[in-house]
Amino acid sequence: MNSRSHNSVEAIQWHNGQLLLIDQRYLPDKHTVVELDNVLDVANAIKNMVVRGAPAIGITAAYGVVIAARQRFTNCAQSWKTDIDEDIEMLASSRPTAVNLFWALKKMKAVIQSIDSDPQNSLLEEAQRIHRQDIENNYAMGKSGAALIAPQSTIITHCNTGSLATGGFGTALGVIRQAYSENKINRVYADETRPWLQGTRLTAWELQQDNIPVSLIVDSAAATLMKTGAVNWVIVGSDRIAANGDVANKIGTYSLAVLARHHGVKFMVVAPTSTIDMHTADGGGITIEDRSASEVLSCGGHEFYSEQGDYAGVSAWNPAFDITPNSLIDAIVTEKGVVEKPDLKNMQILMSK
Amino acid sequence: MNSRSHNSVEAIQWHNGQLLLIDQRYLPDKHTVVELDNVLDVANAIKNMVVRGAPAIGITAAYGVVIAARQRFTNCAQSWKTDIDEDIEMLASSRPTAVNLFWALKKMKAVIQSIDSDPQNSLLEEAQRIHRQDIENNYAMGKSGAALIAPQSTIITHCNTGSLATGGFGTALGVIRQAYSENKINRVYADETRPWLQGTRLTAWELQQDNIPVSLIVDSAAATLMKTGAVNWVIVGSDRIAANGDVANKIGTYSLAVLARHHGVKFMVVAPTSTIDMHTADGGGITIEDRSASEVLSCGGHEFYSEQGDYAGVSAWNPAFDITPNSLIDAIVTEKGVVEKPDLKNMQILMSK
Repeated sequence: MNSRSHNSVEAIQWHNGQLLLIDQRYLPDKHTVVELDNVLDVANAIKNMVVRGAPAIGITAAYGVVIAARQRFTNCAQSWKTDIDEDIEMLASSRPTAVNLFWALKKMKAVIQSIDSDPQNSLLEEAQRIHRQDIENNYAMGKSGAALIAPQSTIITHCNTGSLATGGFGTALGVIRQAYSENKINRVYADETRPWLQGTRLTAWELQQDNIPVSLIVDSAAATLMKTGAVNWVIVGSDRIAANGDVANKIGTYSLAVLARHHGVKFMVVAPTSTIDMHTADGGGITIEDRSASEVLSCGGHEFYSEQGDYAGVSAWNPAFDITPNSLIDAIVTEKGVVEKPDLKNMQILMSK
Repeated sequence: MNSRSHNSVEAIQWHNGQLLLIDQRYLPDKHTVVELDNVLDVANAIKNMVVRGAPAIGITAAYGVVIAARQRFTNCAQSWKTDIDEDIEMLASSRPTAVNLFWALKKMKAVIQSIDSDPQNSLLEEAQRIHRQDIENNYAMGKSGAALIAPQSTIITHCNTGSLATGGFGTALGVIRQAYSENKINRVYADETRPWLQGTRLTAWELQQDNIPVSLIVDSAAATLMKTGAVNWVIVGSDRIAANGDVANKIGTYSLAVLARHHGVKFMVVAPTSTIDMHTADGGGITIEDRSASEVLSCGGHEFYSEQGDYAGVSAWNPAFDITPNSLIDAIVTEKGVVEKPDLKNMQILMSK
């Protein structure tokens, strides 16, 4: 791993043959680490959001394949390469939107195809390479994104895109960290990001540990903040970017993009090219995960309505992501370079680099 | 009180010389009623949001004056009319944005000026008249607003504007109730309305009791819902309307108005003329209440950060209201009539009726 100047947290670690994940559902109240040594537990950790953030999901799935291969090879050294298919399927079906998951599994499958002996070392090397490369990509994106930001800037960010959401440093939060180190940032406003409160629980916590000035706002206050003229950039991550530059990201991102355009605030998406899905023409083709109504019917662990309760007639609509059309995006920052005013043509140019 | 066909709750009642308020901070979990018989407690009930909603605040303050006059007249039948000034000041300073508060206090002061004997009966009559009139206004607005809504409509509403926020029936929720009774409404989407969750706790609860189909959404999902093409109207209340038709309302309202315009969704504000402040030229002159950061740093009763905690560096910006400019409003519905495309001229015409 790179050495890092900021007070980083490591959401994902490989230690003594086990995958260690910070359980992000309980931050900042409780800092607990779960130790995983079978693939079912890894798939459930992704599904249940012990770990979240598109790059972090991809890295976790890669380590999940290492664990699966160990199990399968121990069980049967002859058939493990076909036996493991159902484990990879299970990991792939853990969450539908973040394409980094499928990207990482594809890379691991390529290694599986290329080996015949005990797969553990080769697969662990590949998973660690994916992990290390993600951090390096974040540093590269941090520099490219920060170059777009003028001194004395105020930023709105949404959800969590920091060390916890990636291999380390962060995508959107990596740009913010880099720009802050270049003395370009006055203050970061973090949307609380209901229903999971990633902004409150994770982003504010990460920024506070780096001593970067941060104020939380309720998601619906972003428009009023923009109207004051104080905001220069909205900077977010992504779970999947279509071939034309349409961006899937945490619910609320599209709202911010419309509001940013209305107020003349610039809008930046920061994501490694592993997030770009050139096989999906536009945002309409991206599967959006509908999560349980209970996430909206409760708040901060407090359940206001339940299926069994007195008020069972109350329902909720809970899409986990939304689609921001390319026309509302000023820049997509990747480790291969920056795409301004994204469309199919300049996304193709980026991906051919 | 009027008889009402819907399963109404009565947020405010006068009973045996006491003011009874449903404590709205604990709904829907606990249905508790506080009994108030001194004016300090009434002012604190407004300040601490035991009761909220601009019309309900006005009615509560009117009853507060009844209680204050009883105390002051008992203490000194000679000087009560000047002694009561500080009580009225205290009530007036309980919350700054809702103009209905000042409107109701002004009406009560006029009665005080006109009487010399024991003030209790005259003042109680005036408070009850304000209360009764508010309900009648809501029924009138319900009909006028519902007339603007086409059959098979889907509505987004924000905060709570129902029986709990008014004398009864509701402003925006009164229009929704009336339109539903006319078979015009397929479904209501209620924004949860952070940080106080009035949408979750109060609006969903009221609509569920009336068997009106309701789905909660996180505030940031409204844009995505509008983008599906399913939404016909955003309908909200108001805490103060300036002379030019700019509207102060719960934080998040301005965001909805920008998003509605972007998506071709119509935007309706429903408020009695007691909400209209012709002495304030435009929204820039309306005082916006900044509430405690702790409301944002906690959620559903769960405190994520505290001043004394390990993460004291995390702050929050917590304006309770925002301003929606008249240009984003399709209709302001009052008991005196409907103003389409509000501006100073047609607001003046309305107020001269």
